[in-house]
Amino acid sequence: MVATDGRPAPNGESPAFDLSTYLKERKAQVEAALDRSLPLGYPEKIYEAMRYSLLAGGKRLRPILCLATCELMGGTMEMAMPTACALEMLHTMSLIHDDLPAMDNDDYRRGKLTNHKVYGEDMAILAGDGLLAYAFEYVATQTQGVPAERVLQVIARLGRTVGAAGLVGGQVVDLESEGKSDIQEETLHYIHTHKTGALLETCVVCGGILAGATDADIERLSRYAQNIGLAFQIIDDILDITATQEELGKTAGKDLQAQKATYPSLWGLEASKAKAQELIEEAIAQLEPFGERSQPLIALANFITARTY
Amino acid sequence: MVATDGRPAPNGESPAFDLSTYLKERKAQVEAALDRSLPLGYPEKIYEAMRYSLLAGGKRLRPILCLATCELMGGTMEMAMPTACALEMLHTMSLIHDDLPAMDNDDYRRGKLTNHKVYGEDMAILAGDGLLAYAFEYVATQTQGVPAERVLQVIARLGRTVGAAGLVGGQVVDLESEGKSDIQEETLHYIHTHKTGALLETCVVCGGILAGATDADIERLSRYAQNIGLAFQIIDDILDITATQEELGKTAGKDLQAQKATYPSLWGLEASKAKAQELIEEAIAQLEPFGERSQPLIALANFITARTY
Repeated sequence: MVATDGRPAPNGESPAFDLSTYLKERKAQVEAALDRSLPLGYPEKIYEAMRYSLLAGGKRLRPILCLATCELMGGTMEMAMPTACALEMLHTMSLIHDDLPAMDNDDYRRGKLTNHKVYGEDMAILAGDGLLAYAFEYVATQTQGVPAERVLQVIARLGRTVGAAGLVGGQVVDLESEGKSDIQEETLHYIHTHKTGALLETCVVCGGILAGATDADIERLSRYAQNIGLAFQIIDDILDITATQEELGKTAGKDLQAQKATYPSLWGLEASKAKAQELIEEAIAQLEPFGERSQPLIALANFITARTY
Repeated sequence: MVATDGRPAPNGESPAFDLSTYLKERKAQVEAALDRSLPLGYPEKIYEAMRYSLLAGGKRLRPILCLATCELMGGTMEMAMPTACALEMLHTMSLIHDDLPAMDNDDYRRGKLTNHKVYGEDMAILAGDGLLAYAFEYVATQTQGVPAERVLQVIARLGRTVGAAGLVGGQVVDLESEGKSDIQEETLHYIHTHKTGALLETCVVCGGILAGATDADIERLSRYAQNIGLAFQIIDDILDITATQEELGKTAGKDLQAQKATYPSLWGLEASKAKAQELIEEAIAQLEPFGERSQPLIALANFITARTY
């Protein structure tokens, strides 16, 4: 894996797309929108706890995927920004709750103390609840220039992705699997498609819905996202083994310690890397009919396998 | 306070309204709808945990208030049933999380073990998250015969009511106040309007929104709900002192033990009872323009002060 920042899209059709600049600009726009989305209120402590995790940095890949897909399908960034922010709120709430002592019991996240280490368990539970509820309110009240029916579709999709059929279900199976040495590939696949893949897919699909994409186009976008979602998780598993805590910004080697099943533990490191690369190529193939305009999504797919931290 | 079941509505305009039969029928309809709303799925354990608390009984006052208001404003029960179920999901999730060891640490609720005592803390946190997310998905996908714009208004209102500006905020101030002996009436009022009042008001307001009620009518309905919400909480505080654990179905005397400020501790028992009665009368006065059709809401208001368990 080599850095792909700024290299031409690999489909050979188009001139160099500067992913590094694109990501930097988009991240700044998303950060600014997130900051505006959640001003401090009373009781201050809960807003501080919510903002602490929501504004703790990260690559903001999820909102950027949503914005990029909306634009690819003919919509504007403005149409998708409230949903993009909501996706980051939902992602953040799932991290806050997953980190709790009763769950994965993590002390660090993105190089900072986890929410409950700073604000206490009670506030961390409530901060997650607050972000979860606010995500739906925010999409419902802030989305402009999109027919109400589409906004309802987005809300339905967000709810499904976060609940027992999505993130929650994935976390349940993950917790049940911990410490078991005989996890089947099927179970591992369930965990990752639900904990990671579902939300990434929803980012892309919601961008499409907001722009009024056809069912056929949304189907292609879904397959693109499913592939990058699985690749993303495989890379995460690899990094847990190969990267240091400083690089990861969270406790390294947690999976090994917890005897968690991972793709490298099932397939080995090299085969895992090859599988991730193959998934990315399949993802990019789905975008072919969209031509040059899909450069950001192509570059984002490549970016995922190029991650070294 | 005497039992009001079956007694004529106190405005003297109308024949006897049989509240007891009405509540029994409505409760059965709501229970059946709740049961259908959340079938078992994989992973079973999380659906079982969600269903355990959602189907644990209770008076179902919140969904019934929503249905009754929708009908009062010219809508049908069918239009409001998905929202009525969502309101009960949101109420249930707040109870599951409030009962957690990191929060109020309660072992019993409605006469049954609390969710985390049966399923563990991790599952209880996730069951709450699952219900919270599902409530929004359910309203967005299941509401029939209502313009999408109204459904979005309902979703926005639900989100606001559950989040930091509502239930979550109320719980935060409640936790911060625990053990403090010098709680001001203002703080106590904040806790209760946010922990109890906001959701009751939203039940009524959402029923109105779904039916297409005017802003002026929704304003009246809000005042009705604010009054019964506060009365409801005062009665709850009184019952915590006067009722036994068996009658309450939850640990009695918790407020005293936890040195929580309550209305009886601020005003005394008798003055609290009188205030509750006064609030109910003011609530009923708001319904006057709606005439006979408001009998269910009048009876429900009376029912709240008549509670002896």
